[in-house]
Amino acid sequence: MAGTDRTRAAEIPQDPGAPAVILVRPQLAENVGMVARAMMNCALSDLRLVAPREDPLSPKGLAAASGADGLLRTARVFDTTEAAIVDLHRVMATTARRRDMTKIVLHPRPAAMQLRRFVADGEQVGLMFGPERAGLNNDDVALADCLIEVPLNPAFSSLNLAQAVLLVGYEWYQAGLQETCEGETFGATFVTNASRPALKEDLLNFFNHLERELDDCGFLRNAEKRPGMIRNIRNVFDRATLTEQEVRTLHGVVKELRHGHDRQNRKAS
Amino acid sequence: MAGTDRTRAAEIPQDPGAPAVILVRPQLAENVGMVARAMMNCALSDLRLVAPREDPLSPKGLAAASGADGLLRTARVFDTTEAAIVDLHRVMATTARRRDMTKIVLHPRPAAMQLRRFVADGEQVGLMFGPERAGLNNDDVALADCLIEVPLNPAFSSLNLAQAVLLVGYEWYQAGLQETCEGETFGATFVTNASRPALKEDLLNFFNHLERELDDCGFLRNAEKRPGMIRNIRNVFDRATLTEQEVRTLHGVVKELRHGHDRQNRKAS
Repeated sequence: MAGTDRTRAAEIPQDPGAPAVILVRPQLAENVGMVARAMMNCALSDLRLVAPREDPLSPKGLAAASGADGLLRTARVFDTTEAAIVDLHRVMATTARRRDMTKIVLHPRPAAMQLRRFVADGEQVGLMFGPERAGLNNDDVALADCLIEVPLNPAFSSLNLAQAVLLVGYEWYQAGLQETCEGETFGATFVTNASRPALKEDLLNFFNHLERELDDCGFLRNAEKRPGMIRNIRNVFDRATLTEQEVRTLHGVVKELRHGHDRQNRKAS
Repeated sequence: MAGTDRTRAAEIPQDPGAPAVILVRPQLAENVGMVARAMMNCALSDLRLVAPREDPLSPKGLAAASGADGLLRTARVFDTTEAAIVDLHRVMATTARRRDMTKIVLHPRPAAMQLRRFVADGEQVGLMFGPERAGLNNDDVALADCLIEVPLNPAFSSLNLAQAVLLVGYEWYQAGLQETCEGETFGATFVTNASRPALKEDLLNFFNHLERELDDCGFLRNAEKRPGMIRNIRNVFDRATLTEQEVRTLHGVVKELRHGHDRQNRKAS
């Protein structure tokens, strides 16, 4: 698969449904450049960087992009992971480590087929990748709907960032080539009558509302346990893949539980 | 997929049937090192080099191998492509260009499944890759039983050498998993470390607790809408497939929201 001249100054792929690639705190501009190249290979174009340590448009980044520098130039930079995903409906996080969290874990192939179905339903989707050495932290992982784990030699499963993007992107591309993969066994389709899946922004607003009230009522008073408790609670609602309507209902639930009628049986409970 | 310490000094995979990887006239030691690493990822161990331009055991080669240097040290060097493949029954050549030759061209997935079948029949198989820039020449290609072409964005299909090895090796590895994963949910697993999935009894107790408090605070006061609202709320938690621990946490959330500290900002909301 040696290089061809076709790679120079290639057109950025125009598929508005293709997943965004979110690199969380990437360390080296060179790796970001190689990710841009892998994205071009897989017809992905929406690159988002959360707090990159180096300027991706540095000479090293541009050299590594090797023909994909157009894509690198359109990358958007965000301060926080949350800001980078607010406009997405589904986010899958690629991770090498199992966490002390309750999440669905998919291999890249079924994950890609799931993503294709979400996109066919008009949803905006994203793939999240962590920093080169440390990987995603637990707060980032808690923002994901599910995890992607690449099945490889368990004695040597570490991939560099661009290779991880390439393998997941490759499966995304293959899933677009296959039209006969419908009706497979993984995962039920999301059945809703009218309401659409909530945007991450709606979900984050709900989390903020809930956590503000939980701080206020004293549930989160243990400062040491607080971050873990928040992650656990967020995970429950992440996994439920809420609709817009459900988020509205949950806002009401929290508000009324906290600020509704006087508590008649305060002692009873 | 950031690095884990597992990658250091990893054992060389011992699968005598796994395909040999034949690099024909590779130019840079660094690329050979990265190929060794990709092979380790995919549990491939038989690396063969035809007339490499640089010493693969140079510092740059070893650094790029990054934990796969054991495999690099066992690589065998040959003067000609013929000499490198004499002991094999089948050879597939990976190429980005169509040739003026009549050959079967396979995508990596069916190619990998074919290879698994050949190996199950006791055959020795190999995967051939050309030099970084020029690719395989026609004489090399003529030695192959068939060609592998990786379907990628046609406007940007060039892969570097290690990425090409990784994608084909990845499919080989996946094809080996298929047998054991068939009929499952394609690798979808539920990661919980300590806590078990909640019993339905636990879930129903939580629903009763929540709905009692929602009645009490007035959220469910509309008698006509009440059954539908309850169903919607239950659905959220049903979909999340809660663990025992999460049910306990949610009991706490509801109790404290309703009966925690005095509501300081009752008017504010």
